[in-house]
Amino acid sequence: MTVTSPKGFSAAGLGSGIKITGAPDLALVVTENRLPATCAGVFTPNKACAAPVRLSKSNLEKTKGYATGVLINSGNANAATGQLGLEHATQSIAQVAGDLGIPTEQLLVCSTGLIGITLPVEAILNTSSKLVAELGSSEDDGHRAANAIMTTDTFAKEVEIARDGVTIGAMAKGAAMLEPALATMLAVITTDLQADSTQLQGALRLAVNESFNQLSVDGAMSTNDTVLVFANGQSNKALNDEALTDLLTETCCNLANQMAKDAEGATKVATISVKGAKTRFDALSGARKVANSLLVKCSLFGADPYWGRIISELGSTMSDFDIDKISISYGDYCVCSGGIAVAVDDEGLRNYMQGSQIDISVEIGMGYENANLTFTDISCAYIEENMRTS
Amino acid sequence: MTVTSPKGFSAAGLGSGIKITGAPDLALVVTENRLPATCAGVFTPNKACAAPVRLSKSNLEKTKGYATGVLINSGNANAATGQLGLEHATQSIAQVAGDLGIPTEQLLVCSTGLIGITLPVEAILNTSSKLVAELGSSEDDGHRAANAIMTTDTFAKEVEIARDGVTIGAMAKGAAMLEPALATMLAVITTDLQADSTQLQGALRLAVNESFNQLSVDGAMSTNDTVLVFANGQSNKALNDEALTDLLTETCCNLANQMAKDAEGATKVATISVKGAKTRFDALSGARKVANSLLVKCSLFGADPYWGRIISELGSTMSDFDIDKISISYGDYCVCSGGIAVAVDDEGLRNYMQGSQIDISVEIGMGYENANLTFTDISCAYIEENMRTS
Repeated sequence: MTVTSPKGFSAAGLGSGIKITGAPDLALVVTENRLPATCAGVFTPNKACAAPVRLSKSNLEKTKGYATGVLINSGNANAATGQLGLEHATQSIAQVAGDLGIPTEQLLVCSTGLIGITLPVEAILNTSSKLVAELGSSEDDGHRAANAIMTTDTFAKEVEIARDGVTIGAMAKGAAMLEPALATMLAVITTDLQADSTQLQGALRLAVNESFNQLSVDGAMSTNDTVLVFANGQSNKALNDEALTDLLTETCCNLANQMAKDAEGATKVATISVKGAKTRFDALSGARKVANSLLVKCSLFGADPYWGRIISELGSTMSDFDIDKISISYGDYCVCSGGIAVAVDDEGLRNYMQGSQIDISVEIGMGYENANLTFTDISCAYIEENMRTS
Repeated sequence: MTVTSPKGFSAAGLGSGIKITGAPDLALVVTENRLPATCAGVFTPNKACAAPVRLSKSNLEKTKGYATGVLINSGNANAATGQLGLEHATQSIAQVAGDLGIPTEQLLVCSTGLIGITLPVEAILNTSSKLVAELGSSEDDGHRAANAIMTTDTFAKEVEIARDGVTIGAMAKGAAMLEPALATMLAVITTDLQADSTQLQGALRLAVNESFNQLSVDGAMSTNDTVLVFANGQSNKALNDEALTDLLTETCCNLANQMAKDAEGATKVATISVKGAKTRFDALSGARKVANSLLVKCSLFGADPYWGRIISELGSTMSDFDIDKISISYGDYCVCSGGIAVAVDDEGLRNYMQGSQIDISVEIGMGYENANLTFTDISCAYIEENMRTS
């Protein structure tokens, strides 16, 4: 269940020396026959986006949506590295594409790690031929690639879905949301179905909106977030737009859930569902403010059903808001109705709040628009993990 | 140096039983002669604002900017308490105004504490006559009032400025920004200068914008934030608009700095100065995103000069942004120029980052608009303080 699960893809992963620990830090995923597959990508909208993001976007534009594979390094984001960073990214894929025997623009590139540090490009150039030589199509080859893209992840995120004669496989790292997003999230999806690049791009955008973009760990948007899908057509089967979107959405939601469970310093996964807002924008703004609220995260960590912080965050954000119409529930426990506290089964609620999954539902009573986000609590481990980069 | 420092104000503070610990929780500040003073107020824009906020705004509108004093309780926010909360606030000031012998609408009211819990109004009603009997104009009376409005504060915030024959005094609680704001911040300013309500309101709004609104602890906006100023005219001196604004700004900045130093779980006070943005809105958006960034706060706590998080937050927020034009400094240490790392005196920078005050300056290079915010780092103590309310 990884990127090598669908027919016709090979992968490799090894340590190139970018990470001084010697841990795996370089991965390659390419079509087995080295022919370009249909390819679509969704990239961070951060204006400080990294060199590899700019280069991959540019290559995908040049090829009009085709690519043979992607080179990924962890341990260095190659962001805020200026013109030199762009040259390093270009040199990296030129070397690997040369070793693969494919045109440079058919290779995409992703990086993840610290921002503002020159990429040790020699590590990649010197390891390229070994990386290409180690390409293989076994499950282990896929796992090696998935392991090589991890940074603060505690486990590799992989998935496989096989249905109606087509197979989809994927790997990802990070705990994030593309907009906004934590640290870097990267996802590479492979599939043997047939799709043209317009269909694939449209379906991927919708899938990302319904998955990674509904996950928030800390409201920070990365310079490097990238989601790529490669469809090589080897199953000789195509799907209609709706079925393709559903399949990609299921894949991305599976990866997003794995990311939430592995979020830095989190002890609980929570959902916030804002219902009955006047506009979709208002529903999303409210949900996002709650999901990114430090105080709400603290309450969840303490298993404290203090809904006052939720109503305060909503009132500070939403345009169409009448406190007298608000009701709030934790799971099945309604704690606020008509904007005031209601009697609740205290022991049942206390037990519910101790769980590892908390579902918060808010009814706004102003209209018919809804929004949902998945987020996490915050513990001291988050601070300890992020207080020093070296 | 407190609310009783200017001529003609008296104050009291005691424990009414709202806080079950018996700690001081009820304060009263009124003119000594019980005649209304010119009064101006700035209130939270939170749409879930508390009953006392609604009642005080309504009273100030009725009197067209005059009030004799303000009743403040800590230990309960009287927010998300519905119609009953409004009745409780009304009953409280009716009782105290009766004991003072003044019309009810001449008394304002503030509350601070937990949201969504019915105000134990009997505690206030039963203590009213004692509170009025204890009113006095000594410094100790002022201190007692300042102590009674604290919640998680570790010290009372008070200030006095005497200049050109006029005196201004103030007390405050909280660690906050009116928009957005942490927990509740309340400030009561008294002065013996002469001002009409239009002049006073205009000057207070400007002063709040330059002080409390440039302080952010966690980006959460409270349901109860209130800043009030009472000018009783007893010095027989007036100031022009600019001088009045300057005096109120100096007072509010002093209180805001005390709040920052007492911010929950903070070990450092930081400033972010965004210079050369294309629009004021862009400058403020960028500064606010940096100030409220969990990752930036974590780096500060760890004394880590990791500017990658600053450039990433700016790139994710600002409309007019070109990474190649960005430079970033910590104090006098420039760490990024032209969007890339620059060589720096490592030991000097390391020492600087260990300090308790960190000044971050960013040059955007797109225009002439600037914005400054004061904020804090985050430590585990913040999470521990906020994880449980009971």
